[in-house]
Amino acid sequence: MTATAQPTPATMRASVMTGVGELRIEDRPVPAPGEHQVLVEVAAVGVCGSDVHYYRHGRIGDFVVDAPMILGHEMSGRIAAVGPGVDPQRVGQRVAVEPQHPCRRCPQCKAGRYNLCPHMEFYATPPVDGAFCRYVLIDDDMAHPVPDSISDDAAALLEPLSVAIATMRKANVRPGSSILIAGAGPIGVICAQAARAFGAARIVVTDLVPSRRDMALRFGATDVLDPTAVDVSAIEPVDAFVDATGVPAAVVSGIKAVGPAGHVVLVGMGADEYALPVSHIANFEITVTGVFRYTDTWPAAIHLVASGAVDLDGMVTGRYDLEHVGEALDSDSDPASLKSIVMPS
Amino acid sequence: MTATAQPTPATMRASVMTGVGELRIEDRPVPAPGEHQVLVEVAAVGVCGSDVHYYRHGRIGDFVVDAPMILGHEMSGRIAAVGPGVDPQRVGQRVAVEPQHPCRRCPQCKAGRYNLCPHMEFYATPPVDGAFCRYVLIDDDMAHPVPDSISDDAAALLEPLSVAIATMRKANVRPGSSILIAGAGPIGVICAQAARAFGAARIVVTDLVPSRRDMALRFGATDVLDPTAVDVSAIEPVDAFVDATGVPAAVVSGIKAVGPAGHVVLVGMGADEYALPVSHIANFEITVTGVFRYTDTWPAAIHLVASGAVDLDGMVTGRYDLEHVGEALDSDSDPASLKSIVMPS
Amino acid sequence: MTATAQPTPATMRASVMTGVGELRIEDRPVPAPGEHQVLVEVAAVGVCGSDVHYYRHGRIGDFVVDAPMILGHEMSGRIAAVGPGVDPQRVGQRVAVEPQHPCRRCPQCKAGRYNLCPHMEFYATPPVDGAFCRYVLIDDDMAHPVPDSISDDAAALLEPLSVAIATMRKANVRPGSSILIAGAGPIGVICAQAARAFGAARIVVTDLVPSRRDMALRFGATDVLDPTAVDVSAIEPVDAFVDATGVPAAVVSGIKAVGPAGHVVLVGMGADEYALPVSHIANFEITVTGVFRYTDTWPAAIHLVASGAVDLDGMVTGRYDLEHVGEALDSDSDPASLKSIVMPS
Amino acid sequence: MTATAQPTPATMRASVMTGVGELRIEDRPVPAPGEHQVLVEVAAVGVCGSDVHYYRHGRIGDFVVDAPMILGHEMSGRIAAVGPGVDPQRVGQRVAVEPQHPCRRCPQCKAGRYNLCPHMEFYATPPVDGAFCRYVLIDDDMAHPVPDSISDDAAALLEPLSVAIATMRKANVRPGSSILIAGAGPIGVICAQAARAFGAARIVVTDLVPSRRDMALRFGATDVLDPTAVDVSAIEPVDAFVDATGVPAAVVSGIKAVGPAGHVVLVGMGADEYALPVSHIANFEITVTGVFRYTDTWPAAIHLVASGAVDLDGMVTGRYDLEHVGEALDSDSDPASLKSIVMPS
Repeated sequence: MTATAQPTPATMRASVMTGVGELRIEDRPVPAPGEHQVLVEVAAVGVCGSDVHYYRHGRIGDFVVDAPMILGHEMSGRIAAVGPGVDPQRVGQRVAVEPQHPCRRCPQCKAGRYNLCPHMEFYATPPVDGAFCRYVLIDDDMAHPVPDSISDDAAALLEPLSVAIATMRKANVRPGSSILIAGAGPIGVICAQAARAFGAARIVVTDLVPSRRDMALRFGATDVLDPTAVDVSAIEPVDAFVDATGVPAAVVSGIKAVGPAGHVVLVGMGADEYALPVSHIANFEITVTGVFRYTDTWPAAIHLVASGAVDLDGMVTGRYDLEHVGEALDSDSDPASLKSIVMPS
Repeated sequence: MTATAQPTPATMRASVMTGVGELRIEDRPVPAPGEHQVLVEVAAVGVCGSDVHYYRHGRIGDFVVDAPMILGHEMSGRIAAVGPGVDPQRVGQRVAVEPQHPCRRCPQCKAGRYNLCPHMEFYATPPVDGAFCRYVLIDDDMAHPVPDSISDDAAALLEPLSVAIATMRKANVRPGSSILIAGAGPIGVICAQAARAFGAARIVVTDLVPSRRDMALRFGATDVLDPTAVDVSAIEPVDAFVDATGVPAAVVSGIKAVGPAGHVVLVGMGADEYALPVSHIANFEITVTGVFRYTDTWPAAIHLVASGAVDLDGMVTGRYDLEHVGEALDSDSDPASLKSIVMPS
Repeated sequence: MTATAQPTPATMRASVMTGVGELRIEDRPVPAPGEHQVLVEVAAVGVCGSDVHYYRHGRIGDFVVDAPMILGHEMSGRIAAVGPGVDPQRVGQRVAVEPQHPCRRCPQCKAGRYNLCPHMEFYATPPVDGAFCRYVLIDDDMAHPVPDSISDDAAALLEPLSVAIATMRKANVRPGSSILIAGAGPIGVICAQAARAFGAARIVVTDLVPSRRDMALRFGATDVLDPTAVDVSAIEPVDAFVDATGVPAAVVSGIKAVGPAGHVVLVGMGADEYALPVSHIANFEITVTGVFRYTDTWPAAIHLVASGAVDLDGMVTGRYDLEHVGEALDSDSDPASLKSIVMPS
Repeated sequence: MTATAQPTPATMRASVMTGVGELRIEDRPVPAPGEHQVLVEVAAVGVCGSDVHYYRHGRIGDFVVDAPMILGHEMSGRIAAVGPGVDPQRVGQRVAVEPQHPCRRCPQCKAGRYNLCPHMEFYATPPVDGAFCRYVLIDDDMAHPVPDSISDDAAALLEPLSVAIATMRKANVRPGSSILIAGAGPIGVICAQAARAFGAARIVVTDLVPSRRDMALRFGATDVLDPTAVDVSAIEPVDAFVDATGVPAAVVSGIKAVGPAGHVVLVGMGADEYALPVSHIANFEITVTGVFRYTDTWPAAIHLVASGAVDLDGMVTGRYDLEHVGEALDSDSDPASLKSIVMPS
């Protein structure tokens, strides 16, 4: 039996991507929560670079949008109804959504790496719909309660903060670490904040754009560099390098800046294949890996925001309703824009 | 005070590399062991690909042979004399030499990564002399006693086995693992043996040369592949990939054969920079690193050989005296040759 | 829809524990496999110390047998039918059963520690029935296919081998390690075998009974000790200590035998609380933990047995049919007995 | 050759422990720095519980003060002279001293665990003199430069902060963790500060004394408990438990408060042997270990203090000159006292 606070409507409005660069407001049926699921009324949805990429190019690597799809996967809201097996008391609860639906049965899931589940259904990854709409379904354990001290916007942005937390863990950042971050876009800035919260002592951020470097300084960087003016590979060696650009030249110089036994985490999406400084990696036994989503990050993210260690509200530079999702998606071309929020309800 | 079994001579013969492709027998003074050092009378020295590379090209990356230098760093022998602070009882002991002299004071040394010490003095790495001569010095803790059941040849080859052990540790090979190894030269074959000894269940080795693939099968491979006939990137995914070729195409297809959260270890030396499949690395959170020498591997290596889990004697395909080091170095061009030994005494 | 090879009967015979020291053959309905479940016709069931403990005492700690229950959880068999969502081709497959049914949704499950799931249903742990009967149900991913080279008996004993593998992992045993194992009962002997398969160089086993020490030597121990004759705490320090006795004196002397930064794993069940040498643990930064079941061990166990690295058949000292489960349970009082098997079909 | 800023005197005054409860001011020769050593003019020395213990009881476990010895090992100062192999520019540098002199050659040192070196010479551990005197010697890499923003007092207290950092690492504290700390003495309070700096979300501290609980709240605890009023073992389970009391009852209830796969670190010194809840440890696979000094903690400690994440100056409740070391040692019996400093110069 499904518990609800008040009757949910039968249909809802959604902003549907109907083709490359095309969005249309459509009426969609409101789904009913199945076993262990909750229905969440969407409060805020952050716009992510992957949303923009699907919107502009219709694909990311092998993932192709070949049918109408709802974008958006950084999301907060309020539980409107719960399915069988879920505590009915949760109706009304404010939650941040971890937009993953793993199979829970494969070797990756059973090994604690559900982010790598080959059967994953992830919001706004074809053919799974996302959150630019009024209601979404999610498994109950992926709807994380948030305290009142965290705003709807910040609750939505716990998703990119989760990427940053997963990155810091893989980069082995801990009190006293030094870290280089390439790129002061949303992910670079949020990584700088996470690095500070993880105790990094030296946080160097590179970006071509002065205003973005200023943003990085405001949000945790101890040093910023213009990579066109400075040889990044020649800075004092760092313990960790995080790439948030996907630009080969940034990755190469960043890896060369890493000292013995250091860590490299590639977060930025770029070409499938490009040259890396293999000798440097081997001779210094540097570890290179990437971050693909996250596991068990929301509790940490909630603490970092609630305690004030990370400021997500300050990163929001624009708000849009469902009719203006296109403008939200286009806002990333404005260098003054850092993070846009869509409010579907 | 220095303890000796019997008087050591004042001079010794050495095979000195005097230029690219040039070797000359010279008389050199026999060094005296300093504090915590032992003098070892050399019994057997394995020929390593890096010796061959210095001999043919006069350099490896930034390491340049610009003065006469003795090659050879895979070495066993007998302690002929000990310096102050060393138990005089050790004179006469058969030992395998770990050819590293780290500073023991820098952050890398203090973190347990003495192989990455920036002040390292390593046998046969310019300007440090190696072991194609009658006597060598080494710190006492780097002269590892070997039981009589291990031959002089096998004791020398504990060095490349140490590389393989360090590789298996970084590749996280453990009972039940699957591993792909590119290249069935000496390092590939010894890695296959180490993989088996670490419990790997599936050990796939690729090589262009049929006789080398046969060698791999003899020494631990469960499957061998001709990479010109099979798409290596499309085999059933493996937990780990070890490159022992340095060939970019082998590295790329090998990395693509690795499944989620798998490990890649680059052992083969190749170009400084080349293209890697970055998307595959990031999307599957694969860890890519290299092996640069080793720490704390001789005790494990001694056990693996003494217990019969690894067969080093069977890998020896040629023996040479000090006058024929050039032939030993050239033997690698014979596909029937796997491992050559120089016996200086 | 459920696929079956041939009609399964409606009822089956089961050996039911009806009270302390009481067993009765009863007719029970054959269960039908639900979604993602398989029905297994039981071939062999190993008798475990926990079965004996429930039979004799009616409880283990907080787990109390307060209703009739079927014992037995070390089990192999053949898939007789599959539930929805399972490949019908699996019918007829020989399998070893991992007797765990975790919730797959709690934080422990999602962290890869499904063995610690607080909602676990485990065979033969009250109130969940076990395998001393003709048919059992299990989730399809917990029914591990075994090759023909592994006998039914050995396939059943992959369960205690799994305990040993989990133990070796926690004890950080790897090629060259030294390990002390207290107790040469079934778990101690199988741990000795696992230690050898993990590459341990020195495997010391202690037991009061000479015939059990002989058994340990036969199955992998390099040294055996009579703890009444030797001060175990004063042996040459080991890297790891595994207790398979639950006897406080054995645990204390074993911990004291561990060197700096070594590992202690408690497998034997004993009193809830007893004195440990806390100063030794702290001053040498020794890590003490326990093993509670296992995760992801069957693939490794299958490889170790199929490759001949571990011999499980040789450990079987008695076979019983369903009518003689009581005798199988009592067999542990015979020092010549190592492992008893019940064959329900 | 030794470099000095200005002539150092030939003798110095020292507060020497001449027997249990006995101190005497003596003139001692100022030592000359050997190779890789620096002579430090002592600015501030923190009083540690181990100093008090030696002073009152003449021993800690097997370490016995059987000859006159100088106490004190938490220390800061200024480099007065340097020995051969040390940059003469370091003369005059303000430093915090890591009071360890490991052998750098044994397996523990080479594995990166120099704190466990069996040949360690540690300040104020018999028979090695400590720092309640005007000058001390230390290896140059153990004299860590501190910025001007860190006071002499705080620089001395980087030593107990190092213990806390080593503890947090072993306890695996990271952003979002929950931790229970038993005892709000100096180590408990500094652990609470370190836990906050490592990102712990829930920091529960227990102490019998109300004023100490207040101190804990002031320095990072999110909750404090009176263990005589609350059943500590029944609190909401924590990820980690740190004992800073050495009291068996506190250790037992603390361990029982730890959830599945949690960590226990024993820092407090107590009896050599006492009862632990072994079933709870085993059934929940809890890891129990201790902290014995530290490795590589000063850089992190310096960052935590310089960034304001940890407040050491605020913990100082008393200052004493060399003539009043006895009063400094006795100050711990005053519950209002948290940390006393001796200023020898």
